[in-house]
Amino acid sequence: MSTILVNFTCYNLLDIMTSVIRVTKEFHFEMAHALLGYDGPCKNVHGHSYRLFVTLSGNPVDDPGNPKYGMVMDFTDLKNIVRNEIVKVFDHAVVVSRSFDREKKEMFTSAFGNAVIVDYQPTCENLVLDFSDRIKSKLPKSVKLHSLRLYETANSFAEWFASDNE
Amino acid sequence: MSTILVNFTCYNLLDIMTSVIRVTKEFHFEMAHALLGYDGPCKNVHGHSYRLFVTLSGNPVDDPGNPKYGMVMDFTDLKNIVRNEIVKVFDHAVVVSRSFDREKKEMFTSAFGNAVIVDYQPTCENLVLDFSDRIKSKLPKSVKLHSLRLYETANSFAEWFASDNE
Amino acid sequence: MSTILVNFTCYNLLDIMTSVIRVTKEFHFEMAHALLGYDGPCKNVHGHSYRLFVTLSGNPVDDPGNPKYGMVMDFTDLKNIVRNEIVKVFDHAVVVSRSFDREKKEMFTSAFGNAVIVDYQPTCENLVLDFSDRIKSKLPKSVKLHSLRLYETANSFAEWFASDNE
Amino acid sequence: MSTILVNFTCYNLLDIMTSVIRVTKEFHFEMAHALLGYDGPCKNVHGHSYRLFVTLSGNPVDDPGNPKYGMVMDFTDLKNIVRNEIVKVFDHAVVVSRSFDREKKEMFTSAFGNAVIVDYQPTCENLVLDFSDRIKSKLPKSVKLHSLRLYETANSFAEWFASDNE
Amino acid sequence: MSTILVNFTCYNLLDIMTSVIRVTKEFHFEMAHALLGYDGPCKNVHGHSYRLFVTLSGNPVDDPGNPKYGMVMDFTDLKNIVRNEIVKVFDHAVVVSRSFDREKKEMFTSAFGNAVIVDYQPTCENLVLDFSDRIKSKLPKSVKLHSLRLYETANSFAEWFASDNE
Amino acid sequence: MSTILVNFTCYNLLDIMTSVIRVTKEFHFEMAHALLGYDGPCKNVHGHSYRLFVTLSGNPVDDPGNPKYGMVMDFTDLKNIVRNEIVKVFDHAVVVSRSFDREKKEMFTSAFGNAVIVDYQPTCENLVLDFSDRIKSKLPKSVKLHSLRLYETANSFAEWFASDNE
Repeated sequence: MSTILVNFTCYNLLDIMTSVIRVTKEFHFEMAHALLGYDGPCKNVHGHSYRLFVTLSGNPVDDPGNPKYGMVMDFTDLKNIVRNEIVKVFDHAVVVSRSFDREKKEMFTSAFGNAVIVDYQPTCENLVLDFSDRIKSKLPKSVKLHSLRLYETANSFAEWFASDNE
Repeated sequence: MSTILVNFTCYNLLDIMTSVIRVTKEFHFEMAHALLGYDGPCKNVHGHSYRLFVTLSGNPVDDPGNPKYGMVMDFTDLKNIVRNEIVKVFDHAVVVSRSFDREKKEMFTSAFGNAVIVDYQPTCENLVLDFSDRIKSKLPKSVKLHSLRLYETANSFAEWFASDNE
Repeated sequence: MSTILVNFTCYNLLDIMTSVIRVTKEFHFEMAHALLGYDGPCKNVHGHSYRLFVTLSGNPVDDPGNPKYGMVMDFTDLKNIVRNEIVKVFDHAVVVSRSFDREKKEMFTSAFGNAVIVDYQPTCENLVLDFSDRIKSKLPKSVKLHSLRLYETANSFAEWFASDNE
Repeated sequence: MSTILVNFTCYNLLDIMTSVIRVTKEFHFEMAHALLGYDGPCKNVHGHSYRLFVTLSGNPVDDPGNPKYGMVMDFTDLKNIVRNEIVKVFDHAVVVSRSFDREKKEMFTSAFGNAVIVDYQPTCENLVLDFSDRIKSKLPKSVKLHSLRLYETANSFAEWFASDNE
Repeated sequence: MSTILVNFTCYNLLDIMTSVIRVTKEFHFEMAHALLGYDGPCKNVHGHSYRLFVTLSGNPVDDPGNPKYGMVMDFTDLKNIVRNEIVKVFDHAVVVSRSFDREKKEMFTSAFGNAVIVDYQPTCENLVLDFSDRIKSKLPKSVKLHSLRLYETANSFAEWFASDNE
Repeated sequence: MSTILVNFTCYNLLDIMTSVIRVTKEFHFEMAHALLGYDGPCKNVHGHSYRLFVTLSGNPVDDPGNPKYGMVMDFTDLKNIVRNEIVKVFDHAVVVSRSFDREKKEMFTSAFGNAVIVDYQPTCENLVLDFSDRIKSKLPKSVKLHSLRLYETANSFAEWFASDNE
């Protein structure tokens, strides 16, 4: 039986307080979409198993009396925000642009159980941009939305980075 | 520099000729579907990134003069069959049961770019059963369709096994 | 816009009713354990991100009026069973054998927030055997527990198969 | 703080002794090969990151005094066998058939640092068959080589099963 | 049946036009190589299943009349560029440095079906650097090559970033 | 048989010497921990299969006479450092904060085979920060520790970036 007592002379509470760490959690949702006017098979209604990676950055909580001590943000709290703002809205839904003509939109809304009409072409690029707005507005001030990665298929994804858009 | 000369006294052409090996190839397609009458969110049109694993069994070709020497079936030939019979039909499509009422089916066929109307509820279980019929009929007699695995989401799948259905 | 009308002359309700399909769902839990008397580092308390694959076999439901039409078992129902019987018990717990001496067991139960004392050495092999008992007893009669796969690390796993134990 | 004391009335040492469990471990090696006479790009020397899954079946050790108590086979022991018999031979090597003409074989053996000349066409099918012989001969009698899976690329693999070849 | 009509007051065409999004696509190729003068097993000819991730950055197309509306670059166009410039050249090939002596290079070129002689040691680092040149020269001006990630084995990779080299 | 002779007019030794490339290697360890004072199940001793990605940046070695020619750092050397500094310390161990009261710490050190007592709450965030100190101090001056990614579960991770902390 061995016990290792580790001493960090150069690693103390101050370091933690001023260090920036990024934390990421992965989410899934199953969604259909169609790209109006696209010149390929994506113009048809089809679907994907989307995987969304949400990355926050911040300082780990530095107060030993705080139950979140040592965390940038409790993954459970992050999970609740992303589930409410993204997964509940887009999972098991079909997403189409408002630019479809009225007749088709009416057809969509009556033919589909859960249609989400958005103000943009629902490409992977635009979805991840939209999601950045939805998540940012719900985060506490102590953390920053650093980036989002959205896999549309197993081998292609789009990313939004705060640093690219400041 | 080293060269290893390997001799197999117990491993010869006869062994290869009578040995049964299984070979598997993975395919992907992006599909939407809806489950008529289901009591959950899957009743809505939604989509998945399906992953299909096709497993054949047979004896590796035993004729050194055959370009396919040592193969159960050339993966390229298998790829062509599965692409024609499955991927081309179901990729970037929406699949619904013939049991939807006439009005809705007409809506589906006009609202979607590529609707596949099938004679069954398009659950993962029934899709994999249907695929087994489609692939079996196109395989050469020298190989047997051993099994199919169809992932509907990243963590759930259905399987058809020949041995379960003989 | 194209619509494919698919007709299956050889694929009908009877086929579905008598076809056997396997369905699998993946679960995760984060657990610590220790192997009493083992001659390697696994004798220490350490942890793993366990991944459990539960495979059922059965006939897809053949009644179009049943909301589970076309399913061997609704994944949601399977999820509830496995969460209650396995994940809630073993997630965020430390599992040790009853064979530890009394003093150590008392230490374990006071030092750990959630200790599960089992009647066996908690190897991956014995855990998967135990899980087979726990899950089997809760399944409806229409489905059979076909097999379980339990990953202890990313590249090693144990499996229980009903067919190996009949 | 909670402690769960689990009692298994139906789960005892006898069950473990007579239960059959399968255990699997994954291995990797980086190998080049060429297929003599093949009518496609695989006739060229090229390479793959091979992944080999070795599955054994047996009864978990039932003697509490044995350090391997509860294990079908210690993963460390399995690792040593597969590393010696397979990984050390085939990793960072180029594998070609003895059927290449003498001049070319001499070129191979002088041009390559580590050439393995085998008595068969080194397809994925034949490699997995060869590996089954190499591993079987080194296993203790208490376990059985159940099957091997060899990934040649990320989405194609060959498998050898004892039950297919008995 | 529910329809969600989503309105974005703060999310409009202007935002899309000025937002920077990164898009990534994954490619595979099966290649052999040898490292001249290396003091380890990589000096031998051996192979890997390479995975290449190509990341572009740019503004999603902002013209609703453009079939690529909402895309940084159509994945199909990116696929064609990377297939022509990288995959067709390096897949099913063996890559060695021009610094091998003449005799050995002649042996390589006669012994291998498809030898690619490059002006550098074909480490993962140099390959990814070479690929950055090959891809950059073929991209349209509207997008920027942001970065490349090249997996040599399942758990090691090299990356080139434009921002590291400006 | 074809041989491609590749000439790079714009790609020479100077480019390699001044180019910055990042290299990454993945490591695994199996660890238990407990979060003192946390208001959720993580306050219990439990475990994870941690995956650590270590990313270095630097210029590939530019001296053809150096066995490491073309490498930022030999992966074998990096492997040795990370194994010694991280994996050997944290694998098959339980990690708890020094802030536990004396009685509990004594219990921990006697009840566990291998306890690592650290000066911080062992969240994923603080672990990755600690690891950055441990690895940085052992790297040669020619390379820079660029970033670390530590997966605690299959779908959540923390990252330390040098650029965030300069």
